[in-house]
Amino acid sequence: MSRYIDERMIDDIALGASVLGTGGGGDPYLGSLVAKQAMQRWGPVHLWDVNDIADDAYFIPVSSVGAPTVAIEKIISPQQVIRAFEMMEKTLGRRAMGTFPIEVGGINSLIPFILAAQKSLPLIDCDGMGRAFPEVQMVTFYLDNLSSAPNTIADEKGNTLVLHPVDGLWSERFARVITEQMGATAVMCDYPLAGSALKNSAIPGTLSLAQHIGKTLRLARQSGSNPIQAVTEALGGHTLAMGKIVDVERQTTGGFARGSVQIEGTGIDKGERFTILFQNELLLAYRASAVSHPTPENLLAVVPDLISILDGETGRPIVTEHLRYGQRVAVIAAPCHAKWRSARGLEVAGPQYFGYPVDYVPIEQLVNR
Amino acid sequence: MSRYIDERMIDDIALGASVLGTGGGGDPYLGSLVAKQAMQRWGPVHLWDVNDIADDAYFIPVSSVGAPTVAIEKIISPQQVIRAFEMMEKTLGRRAMGTFPIEVGGINSLIPFILAAQKSLPLIDCDGMGRAFPEVQMVTFYLDNLSSAPNTIADEKGNTLVLHPVDGLWSERFARVITEQMGATAVMCDYPLAGSALKNSAIPGTLSLAQHIGKTLRLARQSGSNPIQAVTEALGGHTLAMGKIVDVERQTTGGFARGSVQIEGTGIDKGERFTILFQNELLLAYRASAVSHPTPENLLAVVPDLISILDGETGRPIVTEHLRYGQRVAVIAAPCHAKWRSARGLEVAGPQYFGYPVDYVPIEQLVNR
Repeated sequence: MSRYIDERMIDDIALGASVLGTGGGGDPYLGSLVAKQAMQRWGPVHLWDVNDIADDAYFIPVSSVGAPTVAIEKIISPQQVIRAFEMMEKTLGRRAMGTFPIEVGGINSLIPFILAAQKSLPLIDCDGMGRAFPEVQMVTFYLDNLSSAPNTIADEKGNTLVLHPVDGLWSERFARVITEQMGATAVMCDYPLAGSALKNSAIPGTLSLAQHIGKTLRLARQSGSNPIQAVTEALGGHTLAMGKIVDVERQTTGGFARGSVQIEGTGIDKGERFTILFQNELLLAYRASAVSHPTPENLLAVVPDLISILDGETGRPIVTEHLRYGQRVAVIAAPCHAKWRSARGLEVAGPQYFGYPVDYVPIEQLVNR
Repeated sequence: MSRYIDERMIDDIALGASVLGTGGGGDPYLGSLVAKQAMQRWGPVHLWDVNDIADDAYFIPVSSVGAPTVAIEKIISPQQVIRAFEMMEKTLGRRAMGTFPIEVGGINSLIPFILAAQKSLPLIDCDGMGRAFPEVQMVTFYLDNLSSAPNTIADEKGNTLVLHPVDGLWSERFARVITEQMGATAVMCDYPLAGSALKNSAIPGTLSLAQHIGKTLRLARQSGSNPIQAVTEALGGHTLAMGKIVDVERQTTGGFARGSVQIEGTGIDKGERFTILFQNELLLAYRASAVSHPTPENLLAVVPDLISILDGETGRPIVTEHLRYGQRVAVIAAPCHAKWRSARGLEVAGPQYFGYPVDYVPIEQLVNR
């Protein structure tokens, strides 16, 4: 099944992608402006079901890479996107039959729309994360041992690089330092995939999921029903806490935005305190007492499950770079895709990879303790 | 005029290249081992005069990039050289008709021999520096506004990168951070040039010059004449100081070996003290009193002129990573090629570029004050 997406549907997708972005992946609002502009100029985008693609055709994803704190000031240009894509086609020596988002969370859900509109390419309804993650090897394609090579990276100054890394970890190492030199954000194409590989490895239907979440939130607000409950249901998730932000600590180091946010409970959570740790994305939530370290006992939700902070009134997701003292918020969490719960998935994107001294426990178990 | 270079001539070239390396460019001894091995296996190398090459043919140089302190432990592999070269041919979409050294000083004078032997390619008798320099944009090709792009970089693990930087400065920025990730040294091809551009821009005859300097030093030692005087004459240079090393301070930071060496005068220099500053290469020599800062008054020699430290007895050049307390040494200096004395040359590789608060004064003027 395929259908057209026009610029009027972009706001819902951007909103849903921001929930799936789990605080990271950049503010999709910025990406939505560029995507809508491209669609106004070049027409609507044809969204294809991943099951409808040809096995032997090639598909090239496109994404931004770097620290989302900088993406606020330095918006992606369509020329950059086209340059990274065309260098990939040239390097492969063949034409792409479509594009797809490498991650559905955040701004990266929208960058492929710019490419798809301008090049009249089908956009495939899937991604490699089902959420957002901070490092480029954190994709189902890496779990499935698909080669990330070649990669292309383009900045807005005209620099374009082609990487032939031995694996996805080397891709991440090179991309991170190159992106820092480029001014902390750049456009990247990695994991150019044959249709057969994309079908087997991608998480299907995630652009439609983002649209569904965004639409649900919009309709809840229009009809006056509880927007937080609506988002949580659309995600199949749980509300962890309601409260007020009392502290945000943030550093941009090594190409990442790292930090923590402290929340003081209100309403039914009055008297409680919560801490959420992030590296671009929100990665770990726990009930904080005087001593603020995550333990198996105080754990509320843990990566790779999805954690999102929503505005306590409107239900709109807040990306980490917009978290501020005094905001009234709801913290929600939802199960990640089953691929991330495998031994390999947890090795690549589990709490220990990020240096947290706790084991992964599925959100469904944590809420039922 | 063209001639063959066999592995028995490599020692002279390596010795001369070490003098022209001005303390940097890595110890050519390591490169000479790999070059001789390649020539034993694949035969002698055909050295061509730069004036004899076809204007419309293409020539691809190959060099190592990174901190020479690390090159001691991590020797360049022929596979790495071939991989960087073949990726360049693939990127250009055309075959190279020859290779050349990007810098004649140090290990980079010998790496093209590995490629030339294995691929049966002519080696062109010229280079882009007439010495060694620490940064990749410090080449006559950059002074002449030739494009450095594309660049290829290969490590020993199998990672290969292709850069299309907007200019030589961006090439240096990317190459430096990529090389750091690769373990501080890598093989690079940049400035692929048409024959016409190479003729106009390269410094001609510099491999022959290296061979001449090395041969002169070898013969002086065999005949029992003064080796330091012989080297100085072969270079058209001057002896600045004789003495003993009393301190060496060294750091490997940002992909460079930076530091200083202190020398206490002996013989006719008794009672004097000298300081030489380096960033991979020896860049500035001055007469040091209690307060050790270079001034117009105490300056002895300054980049882009060539400064070399020779063993006080044997006349063999000592690369900065082998400088040690207690060594008896001679400090010599020689004029650089006229291209480096132009306003543009001094802007790119003069003392102020390296952060030294002195103006460039030609060595001929400094010795006649």
